Amino acid sequence: MSVTYPLGFRASGVQAGLRSTSAPDLAFIVNDGPDDVVAGVFTTNRVCAAPVQWSRRVIADHKARVVIANAAVANACTGIDGFADCQCEAEHVATLIGCTPHDVVVASTGVIGVRLDMPAILAGAGMADRALNRGDDANTSAARAIMTTDTVPKMATIDAGNARFGGIAKGAGMLAPQLATMLVFVTTDAVVDPKEFQSALAKACDVTFSRVDSDACMSTNDTVVAMASGASGVSLTGDVLVEALTALCASLARQLVADAEGSHHDVKVTVTGATSTEAAVAVAREVTRSNLVKTAISGNDPNWGRIVAAVGCVPESVAPFDPDKIDVSINGIKICQSGAIGEDRNRVDMRPREVHIDIELHAGNAEAAVWTNDLTHEYVEENSAYTS
Amino acid sequence: MSVTYPLGFRASGVQAGLRSTSAPDLAFIVNDGPDDVVAGVFTTNRVCAAPVQWSRRVIADHKARVVIANAAVANACTGIDGFADCQCEAEHVATLIGCTPHDVVVASTGVIGVRLDMPAILAGAGMADRALNRGDDANTSAARAIMTTDTVPKMATIDAGNARFGGIAKGAGMLAPQLATMLVFVTTDAVVDPKEFQSALAKACDVTFSRVDSDACMSTNDTVVAMASGASGVSLTGDVLVEALTALCASLARQLVADAEGSHHDVKVTVTGATSTEAAVAVAREVTRSNLVKTAISGNDPNWGRIVAAVGCVPESVAPFDPDKIDVSINGIKICQSGAIGEDRNRVDMRPREVHIDIELHAGNAEAAVWTNDLTHEYVEENSAYTS
Repeated sequence: MSVTYPLGFRASGVQAGLRSTSAPDLAFIVNDGPDDVVAGVFTTNRVCAAPVQWSRRVIADHKARVVIANAAVANACTGIDGFADCQCEAEHVATLIGCTPHDVVVASTGVIGVRLDMPAILAGAGMADRALNRGDDANTSAARAIMTTDTVPKMATIDAGNARFGGIAKGAGMLAPQLATMLVFVTTDAVVDPKEFQSALAKACDVTFSRVDSDACMSTNDTVVAMASGASGVSLTGDVLVEALTALCASLARQLVADAEGSHHDVKVTVTGATSTEAAVAVAREVTRSNLVKTAISGNDPNWGRIVAAVGCVPESVAPFDPDKIDVSINGIKICQSGAIGEDRNRVDMRPREVHIDIELHAGNAEAAVWTNDLTHEYVEENSAYTS
Repeated sequence: MSVTYPLGFRASGVQAGLRSTSAPDLAFIVNDGPDDVVAGVFTTNRVCAAPVQWSRRVIADHKARVVIANAAVANACTGIDGFADCQCEAEHVATLIGCTPHDVVVASTGVIGVRLDMPAILAGAGMADRALNRGDDANTSAARAIMTTDTVPKMATIDAGNARFGGIAKGAGMLAPQLATMLVFVTTDAVVDPKEFQSALAKACDVTFSRVDSDACMSTNDTVVAMASGASGVSLTGDVLVEALTALCASLARQLVADAEGSHHDVKVTVTGATSTEAAVAVAREVTRSNLVKTAISGNDPNWGRIVAAVGCVPESVAPFDPDKIDVSINGIKICQSGAIGEDRNRVDMRPREVHIDIELHAGNAEAAVWTNDLTHEYVEENSAYTS
């Protein structure tokens, strides 16, 4: 179960014919209320796709009734025509669902610089509307319809008291050949304050999806949208709401890392002893973005020199620390102590899929963790094969 | 010819036995004067190797007589013991050459976190001293002795009026398995002002080596050192000096790109229409650092969507521009116009080794170019294979 685990939601995933394969490619998630609260977090890329530009406006009043999401084509860098396509899509869905176009969140993932096949989208929307349902089949179809090179659908549910949360996700940064974007759709039947729901979602994203860094590339289409139906009658506020959203997003984020294209290792870089959380994140991110660290891990090489070299690239103004005090452990073996040679590197067991890199800066008490993957031949293959 | 093309220099490259192969691994470059002017530019990585720490102090008084450089071991992250090794090395060389230890520039490239084999280094220094000579053989031996996974030695010479310049180089960022570092050694027989020589070298590096970005990773050992003997009696100052050093460094930088490990394409990203040179460099660098752009090029895919997505990741505060006005050409074909679909991508010929990406921001009159390589299977192979 996923997005229809909470009360008040229906979903569907159908084959509109946007892909060259027979897989589903168009998903609907409908909020039947009574509430129609929505929150959203979008890519900060200045080059953002038409559906992102559209959906930012939709969620501005914290109200939406439906999400339509397609795979195969991103509708990015398509100019004014692409925006018109997006608006037309929303108007058609609004007619089907019985709401206004400004209640329709639109999300797309796929090739940049290609126009949507509008006849296929509009016909597919009709199919998706008729297929709307609750339950496992509807959930899985919706999750499958947004997959690009994902090998498995990503779904999660959690309970927070008597309220329920569900979600689906695809992607992990920009990973696939010409196919971009992380899309995440979250539902809850809790009663929430609209503005608080938005800030709670932003906080949840900040410590989950924003701490997954697959290849340091930021998509034109990244979208996280949450809808609240209020159907449970259970009010959620404050930390309880933030924690529920964070737990759900953390589960989906972990699934994204585990299915990152071509990866052999899931790598958790934890930085402790930083002067601030921001400093810890900056150091961890520099390590997760180092191609030299990522290739070493794909070769099962506990190459701590490359890790320390990456740490040293963070400006002192961002993360104050003394390079001669850094300790680095890989999978529990402290192979770098005080910035120099520590325990025997041959003691590090690199066989587990999950690799833990722990960096102690000895500069303060703050910490943070960022996830990434190794950089493998399969990553290069996926991203260099020409598939227009 | 290279470093002994100018008058007043001798060089050598010998096999000290630091490598597992029979290749030379220790180089000397000696300035016989009459002047002993030196300038240096080093890595800005906060984790810097012992030889970088040592050589920064050596050049502080703008005087040096000799460079000793070794391959195989970087002497980085080796703590106080590593620094003592470096000092011992300089003292030994000073005895051989007949100068003070503070006239000895030390440079190392190779594995991080491993101590130097000091008996081999000290015996090798004696061999290098005896092998010092002028001419092609000495130049090529020195250039070969600093190679790591470079496939060819990099050498250049130029004339500036009646003064001569020569140089050798290795590496291009951190490219090889556990082997790091760009090392560059430049010589001239011009008479120069010591402080002006330093600022001229910094300017030359800024528009040459600093605009080559192979994998966005910064080494712990990067070193560019220039020595001036004054043996020609020709004084060089101002723009003439800067231009001579820039021309020499540009030749060496281009050779580094051409020999980058595992690359199939040399990629020149030129940004025009920027509000400042800094903005143009920032945009070009973001593109050259995108793994998605680099893998697309390795697949001969003129994927302009990934280029525009990378451009959009530059903060507006760094590079003001309107994303809807960007034009992108690849090898002369304007496949993105005004941020949207331009000419037919199938017209782009991706077969040449040199790929030109031209980005027009339409925001100002400044421009800059940054070179990189594509991201290939061979890059992953070189950097993941464990070779201790």
